[in-house]
Amino acid sequence: MDFIDSIKKVKEDSFAMASLSEDVRNNALEAVTKALNENKAAIFDANNRDLEAAKESSLADPIINRLKFDDHKLSTCISGIYDLIDLDDPLFKELLKRELDKDLVLTKTTCPIGVIGVIFESRPDALVQIAALCIKSGNCIILKGGSEAKNTNKALFDVIYKACVAAGLPQHFAVLIEDRAEINELLKCHDYVDLLIPRGSNQFVQYIMDNSKIPVMGHADGICHIYVDGAANVEKAVPIIIDSKTQYVAACNAAETLLVHKDIADVLLPLLSDASGNNIKYKCDARSMGMISCEPATEEDFKTEYLDYILSVKIVDNIDEAINHINKYGSHHTDCIITEDKDSADKFMSLVDSAGVYQNCSTRFADGFRYGFGAEVGISTGKIHARGPVGLDGLVTYKYKLVGTGQIVADYASGKSTFKFHDLI
Amino acid sequence: MDFIDSIKKVKEDSFAMASLSEDVRNNALEAVTKALNENKAAIFDANNRDLEAAKESSLADPIINRLKFDDHKLSTCISGIYDLIDLDDPLFKELLKRELDKDLVLTKTTCPIGVIGVIFESRPDALVQIAALCIKSGNCIILKGGSEAKNTNKALFDVIYKACVAAGLPQHFAVLIEDRAEINELLKCHDYVDLLIPRGSNQFVQYIMDNSKIPVMGHADGICHIYVDGAANVEKAVPIIIDSKTQYVAACNAAETLLVHKDIADVLLPLLSDASGNNIKYKCDARSMGMISCEPATEEDFKTEYLDYILSVKIVDNIDEAINHINKYGSHHTDCIITEDKDSADKFMSLVDSAGVYQNCSTRFADGFRYGFGAEVGISTGKIHARGPVGLDGLVTYKYKLVGTGQIVADYASGKSTFKFHDLI
Repeated sequence: MDFIDSIKKVKEDSFAMASLSEDVRNNALEAVTKALNENKAAIFDANNRDLEAAKESSLADPIINRLKFDDHKLSTCISGIYDLIDLDDPLFKELLKRELDKDLVLTKTTCPIGVIGVIFESRPDALVQIAALCIKSGNCIILKGGSEAKNTNKALFDVIYKACVAAGLPQHFAVLIEDRAEINELLKCHDYVDLLIPRGSNQFVQYIMDNSKIPVMGHADGICHIYVDGAANVEKAVPIIIDSKTQYVAACNAAETLLVHKDIADVLLPLLSDASGNNIKYKCDARSMGMISCEPATEEDFKTEYLDYILSVKIVDNIDEAINHINKYGSHHTDCIITEDKDSADKFMSLVDSAGVYQNCSTRFADGFRYGFGAEVGISTGKIHARGPVGLDGLVTYKYKLVGTGQIVADYASGKSTFKFHDLI
Repeated sequence: MDFIDSIKKVKEDSFAMASLSEDVRNNALEAVTKALNENKAAIFDANNRDLEAAKESSLADPIINRLKFDDHKLSTCISGIYDLIDLDDPLFKELLKRELDKDLVLTKTTCPIGVIGVIFESRPDALVQIAALCIKSGNCIILKGGSEAKNTNKALFDVIYKACVAAGLPQHFAVLIEDRAEINELLKCHDYVDLLIPRGSNQFVQYIMDNSKIPVMGHADGICHIYVDGAANVEKAVPIIIDSKTQYVAACNAAETLLVHKDIADVLLPLLSDASGNNIKYKCDARSMGMISCEPATEEDFKTEYLDYILSVKIVDNIDEAINHINKYGSHHTDCIITEDKDSADKFMSLVDSAGVYQNCSTRFADGFRYGFGAEVGISTGKIHARGPVGLDGLVTYKYKLVGTGQIVADYASGKSTFKFHDLI
């Protein structure tokens, strides 16, 4: 069977997948937890082959750490699946139920999106999380993981696939892509794939967006800002800035730019510089240059996602300048104001056009687990469909069901019948 | 000011537009109703110029009828705006409010999409409806109407624009595109336009989708089906089929294909043919050919949106064949089963992958007004974001607001703090 045929089969099975009961989907997830435990020796063995290959290729330590799939990672995955099983079913929810007229009832009901293609980075645990989210939400999945993890991914996929089909999921509910060249074939499958979720470098996500007619959910950039208002508590500000910048620099929700109100800069910046020690390199605009040890910032710095221990700093005259800077240079991901003034916070949170707008806490909270969604398939900076961390809600759409007893539109057009519009829920 | 600069200004004003109170937006709508009444002589005069030009160009009567903007159309528009004013505010709704931990509260709040570009057909009343929906939902609008209606559109736009700016809407909340060449410039404005809604021919919508990185909401095709099940009441079936096909043949929700269960075909088809007289031309598959006066159907017919008094007919062995046909040949718009059997209806409505799945009523009900949405900006056959008739709900997205008192992620990563996840609504 060639690649396109295999994707067509997934589409065909997506209709049956969409109509499975909550019990069948939850039982499949439970079967996955058992199968992962029973097959852990084979999975760890596959992972060891990937780790050895990574060491031979001299991959960097952080990549090797992410690649490792051991007992600890396995039990985190399994406990995540149990959390998902406990969550309410995202399907078959009635969002609207309206009697349009006597015996003519419209229902707006949630249903899966259909076929979702996820292209993800090196962490093999991502495969388990993404597959579990798609199973819970009744979506078929096409998975492509990082090539460094190819043995682990194959072992995990085989275990999950067999357990799910045995538990009643359709034969083609999931496909693992192992050949990188097939990504380009996948991008052409707009008739069979309903949504793509690429997770990876900016360039990669942008490449996917530019080369497919399939809707893409994700984020190309994570340029997050912290604005320290004139009415900020600097004692609160310093740890929030350090956490937002350094708690995990490679994350998309790490802060890249610090905007400081002119009235507070000479107090805040030296405190921040002292507290961060040599851990953060500052790139400062002309006005903040003299206040701390730093390098000069260029225009380009304010458009850069460093993913490193570097922070751009700019002094602003007022909150409006901060908001305008964020809306112009930001990536609409997550931006935070530090202030004790409620009006300033409300203004910032209303006017900043980002998926996450925060007051007095770290930008690193922008994450599906930390929002209580159980897990996430990614974070969306788009404004259409889902925004911010995307959990089960972002993996469903809805359909309108209309049940009548022979009603025709001609009777309503002629005035013989009139609509009642009586909401039943 | 050149075109791109004018679109940039709209984007800049979209943040202020998004933060306007419900009162300001409703007052602006009220001001529009007054201004339309006060300026109706100038509007009708502009419309007469369009009508004269249309007659000189020998445009078809249906187009001229749609082009006409008279007292009747004006009062329909104005009453539609009053209906919108009465609808609940779609903005600032709290979809989720969750205490992540003590004094760390996450709120998911609806907000406008931002800047919406709508390219619509000849009816000038569409301009009023679309503008009103965007104003109610806090979105800035870029409007491009049909060139046949250019004078009417300009007159309507000027009246609406002046009334709204006087009522407190931002100076660049709306732009009217008058030059057709500027559509191509608009398609490149993915940094400033958040959503495009094209309304027009299949080819035109497809052209927009293929030539812009801006998300597009709409439908390229409306190939709607009626499946008459073995357990159908034929007395109900006949008028539903005739209404779905002929009540307004040019509509996207008109039926194009009739699927009939083999056990009922020899009863249904002659009754249907008698009832429809010469009003419907049938294109039949091999099995139904002998049952009524018809032409043979080709494979291509089942993929065709006729928008005419033509209906493709095919006999199926069972409901599964009908569902598979619809999922393969349909456009995921609106499809109906006629049956008295609840299990068959449930199966059809679960497995057919369309925005609207109906039982025992006309496909022509697929419309924002008939669903009680007040009005619609269009009908979406996409599965991402909004599906089916799109009213106010489809014109909003949401943002996550997180308010803390200095919380940092490092404390949760180290285990010093743990999440509570307590829902407040």
